Amino acid sequence: MARFYKKQHENKGLAPGSLVFIGKQKIEEPRIRLLDYDKEHLIENQLQDISEGADLVNTDTVSWINIDGLHDTELIKQIGKSFNLHSLLLEDVLNTGQRPKMEDFDNCLFISLKMLRQDKEEEIILSEQLSLVLGKNFLLTFQERPGDVFDPVRERIRKHKGRIRISGIDYLAYALLDTVVDNYIHIVEELGERIEDLEVDILNDPTPEVMERINHMKREMNYLRKSIRPVREAILELTRSESPLIHENTYPFLKDLHDLSTHAVEAIDTYREMLADHLNLYNTTVSNKLNDIMKVLTIFAAIFIPLTFIAGVYGTNFKYLPELEFKYSYFVFWAVLIVVAAFMVRYFKRQKWF
Amino acid sequence: MARFYKKQHENKGLAPGSLVFIGKQKIEEPRIRLLDYDKEHLIENQLQDISEGADLVNTDTVSWINIDGLHDTELIKQIGKSFNLHSLLLEDVLNTGQRPKMEDFDNCLFISLKMLRQDKEEEIILSEQLSLVLGKNFLLTFQERPGDVFDPVRERIRKHKGRIRISGIDYLAYALLDTVVDNYIHIVEELGERIEDLEVDILNDPTPEVMERINHMKREMNYLRKSIRPVREAILELTRSESPLIHENTYPFLKDLHDLSTHAVEAIDTYREMLADHLNLYNTTVSNKLNDIMKVLTIFAAIFIPLTFIAGVYGTNFKYLPELEFKYSYFVFWAVLIVVAAFMVRYFKRQKWF
Amino acid sequence: MARFYKKQHENKGLAPGSLVFIGKQKIEEPRIRLLDYDKEHLIENQLQDISEGADLVNTDTVSWINIDGLHDTELIKQIGKSFNLHSLLLEDVLNTGQRPKMEDFDNCLFISLKMLRQDKEEEIILSEQLSLVLGKNFLLTFQERPGDVFDPVRERIRKHKGRIRISGIDYLAYALLDTVVDNYIHIVEELGERIEDLEVDILNDPTPEVMERINHMKREMNYLRKSIRPVREAILELTRSESPLIHENTYPFLKDLHDLSTHAVEAIDTYREMLADHLNLYNTTVSNKLNDIMKVLTIFAAIFIPLTFIAGVYGTNFKYLPELEFKYSYFVFWAVLIVVAAFMVRYFKRQKWF
Amino acid sequence: MARFYKKQHENKGLAPGSLVFIGKQKIEEPRIRLLDYDKEHLIENQLQDISEGADLVNTDTVSWINIDGLHDTELIKQIGKSFNLHSLLLEDVLNTGQRPKMEDFDNCLFISLKMLRQDKEEEIILSEQLSLVLGKNFLLTFQERPGDVFDPVRERIRKHKGRIRISGIDYLAYALLDTVVDNYIHIVEELGERIEDLEVDILNDPTPEVMERINHMKREMNYLRKSIRPVREAILELTRSESPLIHENTYPFLKDLHDLSTHAVEAIDTYREMLADHLNLYNTTVSNKLNDIMKVLTIFAAIFIPLTFIAGVYGTNFKYLPELEFKYSYFVFWAVLIVVAAFMVRYFKRQKWF
Amino acid sequence: MARFYKKQHENKGLAPGSLVFIGKQKIEEPRIRLLDYDKEHLIENQLQDISEGADLVNTDTVSWINIDGLHDTELIKQIGKSFNLHSLLLEDVLNTGQRPKMEDFDNCLFISLKMLRQDKEEEIILSEQLSLVLGKNFLLTFQERPGDVFDPVRERIRKHKGRIRISGIDYLAYALLDTVVDNYIHIVEELGERIEDLEVDILNDPTPEVMERINHMKREMNYLRKSIRPVREAILELTRSESPLIHENTYPFLKDLHDLSTHAVEAIDTYREMLADHLNLYNTTVSNKLNDIMKVLTIFAAIFIPLTFIAGVYGTNFKYLPELEFKYSYFVFWAVLIVVAAFMVRYFKRQKWF
Repeated sequence: MARFYKKQHENKGLAPGSLVFIGKQKIEEPRIRLLDYDKEHLIENQLQDISEGADLVNTDTVSWINIDGLHDTELIKQIGKSFNLHSLLLEDVLNTGQRPKMEDFDNCLFISLKMLRQDKEEEIILSEQLSLVLGKNFLLTFQERPGDVFDPVRERIRKHKGRIRISGIDYLAYALLDTVVDNYIHIVEELGERIEDLEVDILNDPTPEVMERINHMKREMNYLRKSIRPVREAILELTRSESPLIHENTYPFLKDLHDLSTHAVEAIDTYREMLADHLNLYNTTVSNKLNDIMKVLTIFAAIFIPLTFIAGVYGTNFKYLPELEFKYSYFVFWAVLIVVAAFMVRYFKRQKWF
Repeated sequence: MARFYKKQHENKGLAPGSLVFIGKQKIEEPRIRLLDYDKEHLIENQLQDISEGADLVNTDTVSWINIDGLHDTELIKQIGKSFNLHSLLLEDVLNTGQRPKMEDFDNCLFISLKMLRQDKEEEIILSEQLSLVLGKNFLLTFQERPGDVFDPVRERIRKHKGRIRISGIDYLAYALLDTVVDNYIHIVEELGERIEDLEVDILNDPTPEVMERINHMKREMNYLRKSIRPVREAILELTRSESPLIHENTYPFLKDLHDLSTHAVEAIDTYREMLADHLNLYNTTVSNKLNDIMKVLTIFAAIFIPLTFIAGVYGTNFKYLPELEFKYSYFVFWAVLIVVAAFMVRYFKRQKWF
Repeated sequence: MARFYKKQHENKGLAPGSLVFIGKQKIEEPRIRLLDYDKEHLIENQLQDISEGADLVNTDTVSWINIDGLHDTELIKQIGKSFNLHSLLLEDVLNTGQRPKMEDFDNCLFISLKMLRQDKEEEIILSEQLSLVLGKNFLLTFQERPGDVFDPVRERIRKHKGRIRISGIDYLAYALLDTVVDNYIHIVEELGERIEDLEVDILNDPTPEVMERINHMKREMNYLRKSIRPVREAILELTRSESPLIHENTYPFLKDLHDLSTHAVEAIDTYREMLADHLNLYNTTVSNKLNDIMKVLTIFAAIFIPLTFIAGVYGTNFKYLPELEFKYSYFVFWAVLIVVAAFMVRYFKRQKWF
Repeated sequence: MARFYKKQHENKGLAPGSLVFIGKQKIEEPRIRLLDYDKEHLIENQLQDISEGADLVNTDTVSWINIDGLHDTELIKQIGKSFNLHSLLLEDVLNTGQRPKMEDFDNCLFISLKMLRQDKEEEIILSEQLSLVLGKNFLLTFQERPGDVFDPVRERIRKHKGRIRISGIDYLAYALLDTVVDNYIHIVEELGERIEDLEVDILNDPTPEVMERINHMKREMNYLRKSIRPVREAILELTRSESPLIHENTYPFLKDLHDLSTHAVEAIDTYREMLADHLNLYNTTVSNKLNDIMKVLTIFAAIFIPLTFIAGVYGTNFKYLPELEFKYSYFVFWAVLIVVAAFMVRYFKRQKWF
Repeated sequence: MARFYKKQHENKGLAPGSLVFIGKQKIEEPRIRLLDYDKEHLIENQLQDISEGADLVNTDTVSWINIDGLHDTELIKQIGKSFNLHSLLLEDVLNTGQRPKMEDFDNCLFISLKMLRQDKEEEIILSEQLSLVLGKNFLLTFQERPGDVFDPVRERIRKHKGRIRISGIDYLAYALLDTVVDNYIHIVEELGERIEDLEVDILNDPTPEVMERINHMKREMNYLRKSIRPVREAILELTRSESPLIHENTYPFLKDLHDLSTHAVEAIDTYREMLADHLNLYNTTVSNKLNDIMKVLTIFAAIFIPLTFIAGVYGTNFKYLPELEFKYSYFVFWAVLIVVAAFMVRYFKRQKWF
């Protein structure tokens, strides 16, 4: 319950800018990991203290500091001081119900978005907040818990693959965002395939379970849309930011990233429309079934009720009921029954009822 | 009745600019409260006369004057004179059916919006108009009645928490608006949680009560939207106003406030769509129920009506009815009945009717 | 019939710019009334000849000339000449099927809009075209017939109330427009109240009459929207016109007027959505009723049809029908009937059918 | 079939710019008519050869050349040469499935639009393509076949009515466009009146024919919209073209024309919504009818099925059936039947079923 | 399954810019074809090695190199080097699930779009990705497999038809795009004709097959829209690119191309609406059918159930049942039956049930 928007009561009435963690604690102890590299050197480290990382900021190397776990507000406050971050930025990092956005604080760019993940069993999309702070020589990433989709990026850094080691901190930020958006598309397409397959079930066997499935998919698509659409806006703002923190060589990559996010959003809209069509189809199929059921009922009723009536007439006990006396009455009676029934059958055939 | 838009007949045909209170009187005597502070001093007072407050305006301290109760038009007129306010502004303060908006009068900024509150018993959203007038050294707030969501802000001022005591009058205005918008989100999320929970009821037991509940939620969401959407517009205008009354340090906070209001509006739209889906689901479930009912009817009718007919045939009193005479006729008769019934049952099973 | 858009055949193929009255003649003789005033003087007059009024135009006083009745094209042509008006303007004045609009002819501003009025008996909105021509020292207003909503404005002029006597001709135009738009809101809210009340009827007693009422309200709301939306556009254009004919002091009033018209349009949209929800609710309620009806039918049929069959079996006249001979057969028979019926009742109870 | 979009296969794969006639030949021999005039002179002629007309182009008079029939691509090519027209323009003239548009070729303005006409019998809107080429001293109009709505314009030229003889070629183009758009409004309003009248039929007698009529109207309205909406765009582009070919005095007329086309488009949208409401009303009425039918069925079934069962019980042939022996059994039996029936009737009355 | 959006898993987590083919291999061996021409010369060749083509790039002739088959990433990488293409461009060429777009890399323009084709048997639209790279003197086109719609263009080049041989490389690109978009319109119109024809089937015989057909058409239209709408955007961007690679004479052609794509998109939207209307019509027709079925059932039930009851009464075996003894009872009985039946028939006639 309340998966779509998390309650934020705790924040209510507090001084804007005061630091409160809003969300569920998903890790016992926050973990700080450092990746510091340039073309030639590479340091990979788990930090005990944020000050270790802060020292690296003023060097010329690319310093990526990743923090897993947000509940330790003291730590976050300390990071804020070390890197000279605006209090609003820290507040947004801590609020996991934050709407995805990008903001340009003069000394850094802040991007908040959602990493999505599918719970395979319940077929539910789960989301985790990711915050990026892009400074002059450093990139901070904040996650709610360990485990992310960034391992391929780390591998590329370690193995010197592609242009990542020869590019700046802005390219690293792009590479991470690209991985997140790629993952969006992956999820959309996986759900989408199941949605495309649903149609066959609807036509063959429109059980209430199928309807529940359509509805479930609709809800997940709405959840995806709610999570991904503001990300596209944020990326667009990023491509337009003209911030000195982003090198001009990186812009084509950002534009490509924006195209990718547009692709994701359009795919979601296409599937939402497809689901609406599915629901229509379902309803129409159910109506058709009702018509079929009623036809069966009507055919039986219309044929046998008159026959029963006729039988009833000759079941009466009138003293003077002439037909009963004739020898072949019973056979004539059957003949009449058959004629009436045949007439009804023919009528329904003409109506194309069967 | 007429909760959505209040009647404003009284105003009709009056000179624009003439002061008339439009709304219900919700307090006996208007009350004026003053909070005057700077970094070091703090005065908290209940004023008998608005002129007391007006004197403080030209000092360098931050002066927040809160007026509860709007029916005393004389008082409002007096305030207008003391603070040199435009007659249109005063008219808007008095019209509690006013659409939320922000207007830049050269000597002050005027913001009109709604404070919302939930009547827990009837699950109805109630609204109260709040008007803010932000001048050079003063902030006027007008409410329809005592009791508001601003106590935490007052507490922060009194206890010197956060940056409020060291910031200017514009930051105070922001802090109040932030509290109001935070409260919007709180209300939306509380309703939202109930909306998310509704789905289970629809699938399990789609009674008319559930439908009434969906409809009720829809109406409340429409009410919220009507109240909150123009507020977002007003805040956007504020962030773009470039008024000298707002210090540049306050703009990031206003932008954050705008993001918050966007969050609220998007959440409302998401829940409105969810309710539309709920209604669809409800209707589909009702259709499915109808099909189930009709299947039961049809199965009974189609099995027993033919059987009754056969029984009727042998209830006739024809004199020469050969089958009646055979010894085992009755048992053959039962066998036929059972075969016919079995055949029907098999047919319906094939049709997957049960 | 054809209330939404009036036929304009008469115009077809005529030279654009040639003057033809399009509409119904609603008054026998056109009437020209003059109100000429400044801070100190006031003349109120009924004119026989438009030239009387034209002389006043070059004086410094505010001259408001109101014409009731449009069918006398000669008069209109004469007015056009006297005040040097563009032929397109005159054509628009005469075409009562005109879409509301504002146009800036260099020497004057032209505004065409609808005055609305409710026919209480048929609950139908009726509209009358109002054209305003705002020149340097004069204001012309054209109405289809006598009787308008401007009496309070006239009263304010006569009694020297508010700022009207000390303001210019542009303020007078604003005051008139304000009265018209105020009246829109009045009508919308009156209809709206009835719409809000409809919900109870739908839930309690969804007769076809209720549906007709919903539909009627929908049509009236569409009619209002069609009439009012272009007025908002026209007012917006007016606030942006930067015409030298409008004094800068008047702009805040025009902006307020625009807010008012936005309020009206939003209220209409809110009520239109509410009506759509009402219709949904109605349909769902009807579906629920159908289910209830079918349940009653099915319960009766499913209980009594099998019982009737059993009775039918023992109504057969087979010679050897052993059960008939036993002494307590009849009572066993009843026991069986009751058991079967009880079983059916229990089944339907389990299905929550009653 | 395929009335909405004509097949254009013939064009497929041809060099863009090669001239092919796409459409049905609607006249045997193309006809070229010339109207050449200025304030004092007027020549009206049927030309054998386009070169006759081309000579007049360089004179100062207004030269309107109208071509009926487009299948003679040689002629069109010749015209193209004589008047120095772009090959794309000629291609657009020949493609009668062309979307209405306006294009500014440096030496001329090209406007393509549809003339509409109602087939009274089938109540179908038919369209014919009209292309206008406005040059410095000439106006070319291309029609698919003779017969147009321009006779009143011709009459005005001949009879020297209005300002047409004293205005330039651009005013002539305006006059023709105005006539076409006026005709749009005429058609929309005629259909609209029938749409407004439909509601009565729906409420009184919702036969399938009424539904077909609603659907037919919907299709025609879609056809109108498809034809007229791009025309409005084209006219808007014209008013903004700032082409030296249009005299500044003509702009107010073009703006008026744009208002007229907006009026047409809004009327279409209003009627489309009205038709959607009609369909809703129809469906709801049909649902109500179904409920009525089911009530009748249920009332009959629920009253007589139990009665029949009771009668069936006393039609059994049990040897020991005590009630049969009493003298007044039969009358008690009737009393029971009547009581049961009365009880049922009362129940249904309480349910407000009749 | 998953026709709408292809899975792109393979790409997930890879360095952006690394080349991976995403799609199905549709040809065994890639094929490179060259068309090199100017006004006087023409070379047509199948290349073994891309370097052959690269040499021609710096000559003044127009060099069109077409590559069929994309799975050989080595070849693509080599082409990238030879023509100095951005790595993102190559990645887009290889990703056949790419959303259509146009991008301006400084040294070339890149356009990615879909060629569509109908599978006649299954009535399914199939798509193949086409990428165009327009450089200073060369045009590269990448297709997934041999066979395209460009033969008429090749023919025009070979036969020196139209302006193609005397125009530059940008005109060639336009000519190819024009052919693709023309083909879109062809496909839309062919589907459209079938959609227009569907209405008759719906009204005459609304079988579930017709519904499946409507749904199928809807899905195809959605597929078309998804494929064509971004192409229109891309073309619009092209017309606005102001790239030095496009000669100013080509812009009118591009604008015409944009009009064409707008035509396609509008036609799709029109047909989508028509399909929505079809579905409505279908549902309404099904409801009407249900009403008809229920009328038949109700008429039979309401007439014969009471008659059967009456017959049942006189089938009872009460000892003292006076009516049974009268001589003409049986005939009176029949008379009563007939009167009751006639009364019912008259009632249903009055209700206009038949």
